[in-house]
Order: sequence, then structure tokens, then C-alpha cells
Amino acid sequence: MTTSSDNLFCPEQNFYGPASKKIYVDGSLYPLKVGMRKITLSKTYTLQESSFSELPMYDTSGPYSDPSAKIDLQKGLPCIRDTWQTQQKETRPSNQSSHKPLNGRTPIRAAEGGSVTQMHLARKGIVTPEMEYVAIRENQMLEEWIERFSIGGNTFSPVTAEFVRDEVARGRAIIPANINHPELEPMVIGKNFRVKINANIGNSALGSSIQEEVEKAVWACRWGADTVMDLSTGSNIHQTREWILRNAPVPIGTVPIYQALEKVGGVAEELTWEIYRDTLLEQAEQGVDYFTIHSGILKDFLPVAARRMTGIVSRGGSIIAKWCRAHKRENFLYTHFDEICEILRAYDIAISIGDALRPGSIADANDEAQFAELKTLGDLTLKAWEYDVQVMIEGPGHVPLNLVAENMTRQLEYCHEAPFYTLGPLVTDIGAGYDHINSAIGGTLLASLGCAMLCYVTPKEHLGLPGKEDVREGVIVHKLAAHAADLAKGNPTAWLHDNIMSTARYSFAWEDQFNLSLDPVKARKWRKESSPEQGENIEEERFCTMCGPDFCSMKKSQEATE
Amino acid sequence: MTTSSDNLFCPEQNFYGPASKKIYVDGSLYPLKVGMRKITLSKTYTLQESSFSELPMYDTSGPYSDPSAKIDLQKGLPCIRDTWQTQQKETRPSNQSSHKPLNGRTPIRAAEGGSVTQMHLARKGIVTPEMEYVAIRENQMLEEWIERFSIGGNTFSPVTAEFVRDEVARGRAIIPANINHPELEPMVIGKNFRVKINANIGNSALGSSIQEEVEKAVWACRWGADTVMDLSTGSNIHQTREWILRNAPVPIGTVPIYQALEKVGGVAEELTWEIYRDTLLEQAEQGVDYFTIHSGILKDFLPVAARRMTGIVSRGGSIIAKWCRAHKRENFLYTHFDEICEILRAYDIAISIGDALRPGSIADANDEAQFAELKTLGDLTLKAWEYDVQVMIEGPGHVPLNLVAENMTRQLEYCHEAPFYTLGPLVTDIGAGYDHINSAIGGTLLASLGCAMLCYVTPKEHLGLPGKEDVREGVIVHKLAAHAADLAKGNPTAWLHDNIMSTARYSFAWEDQFNLSLDPVKARKWRKESSPEQGENIEEERFCTMCGPDFCSMKKSQEATE
Repeated sequence: MTTSSDNLFCPEQNFYGPASKKIYVDGSLYPLKVGMRKITLSKTYTLQESSFSELPMYDTSGPYSDPSAKIDLQKGLPCIRDTWQTQQKETRPSNQSSHKPLNGRTPIRAAEGGSVTQMHLARKGIVTPEMEYVAIRENQMLEEWIERFSIGGNTFSPVTAEFVRDEVARGRAIIPANINHPELEPMVIGKNFRVKINANIGNSALGSSIQEEVEKAVWACRWGADTVMDLSTGSNIHQTREWILRNAPVPIGTVPIYQALEKVGGVAEELTWEIYRDTLLEQAEQGVDYFTIHSGILKDFLPVAARRMTGIVSRGGSIIAKWCRAHKRENFLYTHFDEICEILRAYDIAISIGDALRPGSIADANDEAQFAELKTLGDLTLKAWEYDVQVMIEGPGHVPLNLVAENMTRQLEYCHEAPFYTLGPLVTDIGAGYDHINSAIGGTLLASLGCAMLCYVTPKEHLGLPGKEDVREGVIVHKLAAHAADLAKGNPTAWLHDNIMSTARYSFAWEDQFNLSLDPVKARKWRKESSPEQGENIEEERFCTMCGPDFCSMKKSQEATE
Repeated sequence: MTTSSDNLFCPEQNFYGPASKKIYVDGSLYPLKVGMRKITLSKTYTLQESSFSELPMYDTSGPYSDPSAKIDLQKGLPCIRDTWQTQQKETRPSNQSSHKPLNGRTPIRAAEGGSVTQMHLARKGIVTPEMEYVAIRENQMLEEWIERFSIGGNTFSPVTAEFVRDEVARGRAIIPANINHPELEPMVIGKNFRVKINANIGNSALGSSIQEEVEKAVWACRWGADTVMDLSTGSNIHQTREWILRNAPVPIGTVPIYQALEKVGGVAEELTWEIYRDTLLEQAEQGVDYFTIHSGILKDFLPVAARRMTGIVSRGGSIIAKWCRAHKRENFLYTHFDEICEILRAYDIAISIGDALRPGSIADANDEAQFAELKTLGDLTLKAWEYDVQVMIEGPGHVPLNLVAENMTRQLEYCHEAPFYTLGPLVTDIGAGYDHINSAIGGTLLASLGCAMLCYVTPKEHLGLPGKEDVREGVIVHKLAAHAADLAKGNPTAWLHDNIMSTARYSFAWEDQFNLSLDPVKARKWRKESSPEQGENIEEERFCTMCGPDFCSMKKSQEATE
């Protein structure tokens, strides 16, 4: 009945429980098959004059929740994007590295002088398969509901592929999708879409194995991660990434300087532009969908950062700072930014411009160093856009709740509405062991104000490397934050989800409540543990053990108002 | 080294770890001994020109963290308030019920025509021992730091007993302290003080035992609960409460209608004013410090509530609604409000005016029913103040983040700045299994805007009765929310706490980090599990397993900026 984590690579019908089924929605412009999870409800719910006996849900789990899929980690997932007739993109083989993909394909890049980025195509007025794909995904087959729905007199429109194109052209949204990642199910990041979340995985020199890392990626997607960053820093870094990419239905991000640093034996001073560039090319050919690049930390900012309580807490930022100080030269990720953009353009890799000077403590929040860098990130955004490179901007960090809103206001202003992608922010420094929650608190507020993607934080933050259960907790808690922000922004599908949940709760439809919860497996398990004597008849109980039958407010409320 | 939960009733030095020690601060007006937890730091930290080699912390654990205390659950805690020379209060024996306290004392009440409430004394200009006690507690022996501290040019003043008196007189703060609860260590609830949290405990007809409930109360205080509500609804309700009260160093709240309903066999229609009144008197003589009373739900509001998605989700509210409907009469807690105030005044019991119509779903948030009741709560506040009864106002519930602020604005306006005490709010309906986090998200925002106390929610909310670990999680997560709100409000002691924590983090002072964490036991345990080979030499590691030695940003940042 409950789903065990053991069958992660053996998809079966019960991935989320017996009432959930994998479905695919066809594209109308392209031969797409957009995967969703359909929940069959135990009865029909009527909301704002629409009836629902089932509810399609946004689904990030890819083929792993499709019982007809065969998973072979050695071969990777099916290359679904190959079938989409993307004739607009002129490409040629790319042989910048010695990379031999697991999937047996030859890496490709844009033809000379050409561009394959979603932004380039969007600006030319072309609606790509990826744009149609994400429009279908965002609507969850609820177009009719969305058109009928209103909150306080406000009405809404479904997402159209043309709207996606317009947002991508404008730079307000990105679709991270390297042309060498054909296994990818596209998704969109931007303030006018559902708030997304990223899960970081990655071994460090001290822990974990490759197999574990692939499992963590799939595990994160199962619980709802929209993208995954592979932050591995140890040995086998290339192979780990290859396995993750070939088996990932979501965009994969990396911080290439980590691998570059490994290539020079961990000695920051020995980094060169050439080593870094070759690392970008190697990862580009593998299919990495977005790169965190710390181009915005300039050597002039370092004295300001030195006066902080916690200095530079970005790993990439601290590497660059060491390099700048040793060489007494400007950050090479800044001076070579044009060449970086040319590489990104050739593979359609989005840039996530790193905030090397994000505050690592409440005391450093919203300081001169942070905002000086943010302004530079805005300048770099305009430059990347000249190359039609898709951009998002990374954000803090540790920020007290009263200073959170200013981060969003300034980011929108300085960075021309490029999507904001933040780590939290954490709203206190003393939450060790509970920093996933700390992050969700700041993240919910920031996302409700326009932040497009939240990077998860796990319970192990500041203490150690997260294990599998930490990844699950981190993902679910940030899904909660993202969903709460969607509600605050008035997203119609988010409202529908909550409305059906609450109607199910008020009518004691326990199975529907489980299936509609962010973590159906935990909700079902805890409820059953709490009523062991009820066994399978749980649907019939019109109360729960919190209050018992005589004190159930919902039961009494119904009796009082019938 | 780590503290086991087994020794809860056998206090020893290591309650929070080896560097924490119980200390007592003397009063200057009265012979008070205000308990705090003093952390000895591993080195001296300098912040804004002040030096700290130790840090006193606010402490809710009472004698349970004092190794010299002898705990005897059958006798209860020492009656500390007896020694405070509270000659201002004229009392006489109270024999309204057959109650025989465990501590062998005779219950007392105000002398005829007299008043013993903190508000009454405050309005007469009297600074009581309780007022001095809470002033000392709030400052944490950091008066000098507070006077020197500034954020962005703003300066601060320590809390004085006179300021407490003024806030209590004004109704903007309360000190819940029944004169029959001499074991109590007073605390203050109000928007100009540290944000407080409450933990609910209580057996339902379906679970748990008396011994377990006392343990839960002490356990909740250990982790930081400022007050505890005993929401028991099953059998042995009187005896459970007696054990909790006699062994609780914090204020105890109840919802008396639960016991009244037990007296009429669970049939709401059979409730009478007389049965309810006798229940109030019985609990008043036991020493309950505050009562939740649902006086604000009027029968005119019921048709409005009937149109809601989730009706009435307050247990007390749904009982009253059933009674009103059956008798076609106005809520007897409204019609008898004057008599209720007379009882509360005689024992100095604060009233927590219940929000029977709090929204139980996102769809019902900030609706007509909720705000109609809130206005009534404001009217009742003024009436209670006529009797010098201390008042707080209960709040939602389920509210999307964008509607949270309006709750605070209206509460301040309608309820004349009486302290707001809220359950969350939860910012989505779909968080089952994670509703403690859901609640902390809404709660942090509301508290940062002025909410004075947050009622915790545990991970089991909506699913079952919380166990011991659920209580711990619920308490810590809401302490995090309360502390984050204190930071947002610029509380100097909260800032100092975070600043020392971050300085310790940046200097790899691991033991200090553990001791300064909200949950020192978990932080220490996880860190050690993550570096098993380091054993006791953990203080010497200048990195953690998250990044490993080559990728530690703090290490590199220091090297880059030295």
C-alpha cells in the first residue's frame, strides 16, 4: 500500500499511492507527451461551479512514476526531445572535450555563427517545443477552471505557449535546456509561473558514492524537485555528472569552478581561464543545463567583504577571492564574460549568475558588499542578453525577515526582472538542525514577492552532508514554501489544490487528503499509525485521534449548521 | 555528553550540555531569584565594543535544569511566589469547589470587593514582584549591551519593571499568573517584549496517560515553551491538570468548556451556564493561569459560517454553535461575560478570548465571519478591562501569506492592542505531516508585525495526537519563528545571540555553535555523526563534511581577506 523507497528504479503504479496514475498530455503544435500525475478522487467535488472527480498534478518525477517505463541506469532515460522536430536549430558535432556520453550520442553545438538558445528563438518570434511543453505543464489540464476562477473579482488566464515565448524573449523567464540533454522534460523559471525549487546533491571529498548521488537526484525529483544541482567536489566528478544527466528528467545545474579547482589540485591560485573554459566545454558537451558562475565579485569588493562578520560564504566566491588576491588581478570570470557567453550560447546553457557576496549571517544582510555585487549582476545580465543567453540571478543567504522584501525590490530593479533564484533566505543564524525550516520561512516571503526559484536547504545545513531522508525533508519543505507563495500570488491551480484538500478534510475523505498532501506517503503512514485499530476502514471515520469523536470540531460544525 | 530524555525529572548539570549552567539573578525591589541558563563560551567574542566570554539565555525550563533541585512529582515544585512579599494582595480562602491541591495549600481568592489582578495593581501604579521578575528575564543580564547596541542608528533601552507596569496597565501586555499557582515563574506576553510560544498538550479520549502528559509539559518547557495549554478531553481531566499545574514552572492555560462538556457526557446541548461556571471555579482554585473562552461567537454569525468551505474548526466554537442552534439562544459565554470577568478577577486569571470562527482553510481566510467575530472580541476586551482582567486575543488559523498582515492590522485596531495569540497561521492547506513548518512560516511573519505569542503546531497536526518527539519539533520550530520575529523587530538580545553564533561559526568554534543553537542536543549529535573519526577533537576542525577542507568557503574567505 505505501510506497517503499526501494523500488525507485522499478516504477510501478503505486509510486505515490493507489489513486495516482501517470498520464501524458499531447501537444497541439508539436508531438509532445507531457507527463502529469492524475489523482482519482474518492468522490466528486464541486468548486466555483466546476466539478472534479479527478485532479491532474504537476509532476517532476519523469519516467520513474510510469509503470510502463523500463529504467536502465547504464543507458539512461529515453531521449524524448529528439522526437520534437526542432528543425529550427542548426547544429553541428561538438568535439571540444574527450567526452563520450553514456547514451552513445555525439555531443552537438550551434553551427558557426548560429544560436540555439530559447531566448534567441523567442526573440525571433518562434514558439519552440520546449515553450509549448512548459505551457501545458503549468496549466495542469485545468484551462477551463482557470478561465472560470476568480478571487475577489480578479480573473485569470491559462498559460499559453505564446506567453511563455514572450516572457523568455523579455528575459523574465528561462527554460534551462542544454541541447545535449535530450532526456530533459522542460520547465520554466520566472515570476509569472509556478514557483520552482532546486535540490542540491553532490558528494564531497569526505562522503557518499556515485550510485548514491544518482539515487539522490531521482529521489529529489520524486518528491518534487524542479531542478537538481550537482555540487560534487570529490573524485569521479565527471562520471557522477554523466550518470546524473543521463538519468535526470529535470534540468541539471553545476558550479563549474568546483571541477576546475579539482583539476589544479584544490589550489585556487593555480586556476587559469583556460582550465576553467575547458571545464565549461566539457560540461557543456555532457548536457549541463545551467551553470552557476561567480562573475560579479570584483576585486574592489574584497576589502568591503573583509569587514563583514562572516566574510564570503559562497564556495565559488571564496575561491575567486583567493585567486584575485594572489594574482592582484580582476576576477577572470568577469574579464572573460564575453567568451563565457559565447560558449553558453552554443549549447543553450542558462547562466545562474552567482552571488559570491551573499550574506552568511544576519549581521551582514543587505550590506554594501551584497548590493554592490547585485548591481554588477544586473550589468552582466544585459551583456548576457546581448548574446541571447538565458539568465537567472542568485540571491541570499541569511536575511532577517524585515529586510527580505528589499532584496526582491532591488533585484527586480538592478537585474531587469531576470528570474531570482535564492538560497532561503534563512531568517536567523541559530537554527542548526532546523535550517530547512529557517530557509522556508524567508523563502516563502521572498517567493510571494516574485522570487522564481528557491534552492532547498536540508536539515543538515551547517552540520554535515545530507542523507536521503534529509533530501526528502528539504524538498518537501521547500515545495511547501513554493506552493504557499503560489497561493499568495493567486495561482489558480494552487488554489484549486487547497480548495479540494479542505473540502476533502471537511468531509472526512481521508484517502483524498493523503493523495492531495505534499507527502502522501508520510500523511497516510502517520494517520494509520494513529488509528491502528481502524485498519483499512479509515475512510469511514468521521474524526481523528487529535480530538476524538466527541470533540471533532468539523463533525460538530456540520451538525450545527446543517 | 549528550543529554538523554530519561533524566527529565533528575536535573543535572548537563541538561543542555556541559557548557550551560543554571544561574539565578536577584531582584532589586523584591527577593526574587530569576532563573537563566548561562553558556560559558570557549573564547571571548567582541561585538560592538563589548566582550563576551559567557552568554546568559532566557530559560523556560524552571528547576528541571537546576542540579541542586529535587523533583518530586507527587509534591510539586517549590512555591517560589510565596516568598515575594506580595502584601498588596488581599485574599481570603476560596472554597467554590471540592478541590484539594497536591501541594496541601488552601486555594485563595481576592477578598470581597477586592482585586488581585496584575492589571489592577498596574493601574494603581504598583510595580509587582511579577513585573520585576519579567523585566529581569527579558533583559537576560544584558542591560549594558542593550544600551550600547544600535542597528542602523537606532538605539534601544533595557526593559524596566516600570515599563512592564505601564504596558500591563495599558492592556498591551499580560502576565498570566493565577494567585493559586505559586510554583509559577512569571512571564510577559505583549508586542513590546520577546515573542513567546505556547505548547498544547493533553490526552484525548483515544490516547496517552496522565504520567505522559506531565512529562510532555516538562519536556515542552525544556525545549523552550513559554506557556503550556492542557487541552485534555478524556477521563481524569481534573487530576491530569493538577499534576501539570503543581509541576509546571510556566503559565498553564485551558479551555474550560472541554471539561464542562465531559460533565454533560459530551452532549453540547446539555451544557448550562451553571455547569460552566462551576468548571471555571474548580480550575480557578487549581491555579490555571489563563482560560480560552469563546465568548465572541454570536448566533447571528452562524449562518455566515455555514456558507464557509470548512465551517467552524475551533473545538470550543463548534460546541457553542451546537448549543446556540439547539436552544435558539445567544451564546451563554457572551451573555454571562460579566460574571466570567468577576471570577477571572478574583484569581487573576487572564482571558484568552477564543476565535471560534478562525478560518480552517485558505478559502475561508479573512472572511466576513472571521472579522465580525474579531470586532466582537474587541468589544469584549474593553468590557474585561473594566474589570481589570488581563486579556489576549486568539487568532487564525489558515491564511495565505498575502493576507497575513491584514490580520495583524485589524486585530490591533479592533482589539485596542491587546496581545494577539495565534495558531500559525498556516499558509497552505496541503502540508499534512509538515504543518509545524507551515505554521512557522505564517507565524514568523505575523509575529514580526506584532503578534505576541504563537501557539505551536506539531508535525502530527491534522493526522493524529503528537508524541514526545512531535512536541520537541513543534516547540523548536516555533522558537525559531519567534526568534526570527524578534530579530526582525530589532530585539537587541536576539541580535547578540545571532551575532555570537555567526562569529563562532566563522571561527570554527563548534562547541559554541552547538550551545548557541536552538536545539544544542541535535546540533551536537548530528555534527558528531557526520565526523565520527574526529571524536572529541571536533573543536580543531576548520571545515565540515558539507564541503570538505578544500571547499570550505569560510576557511578560504579568511585566507583571502586576512
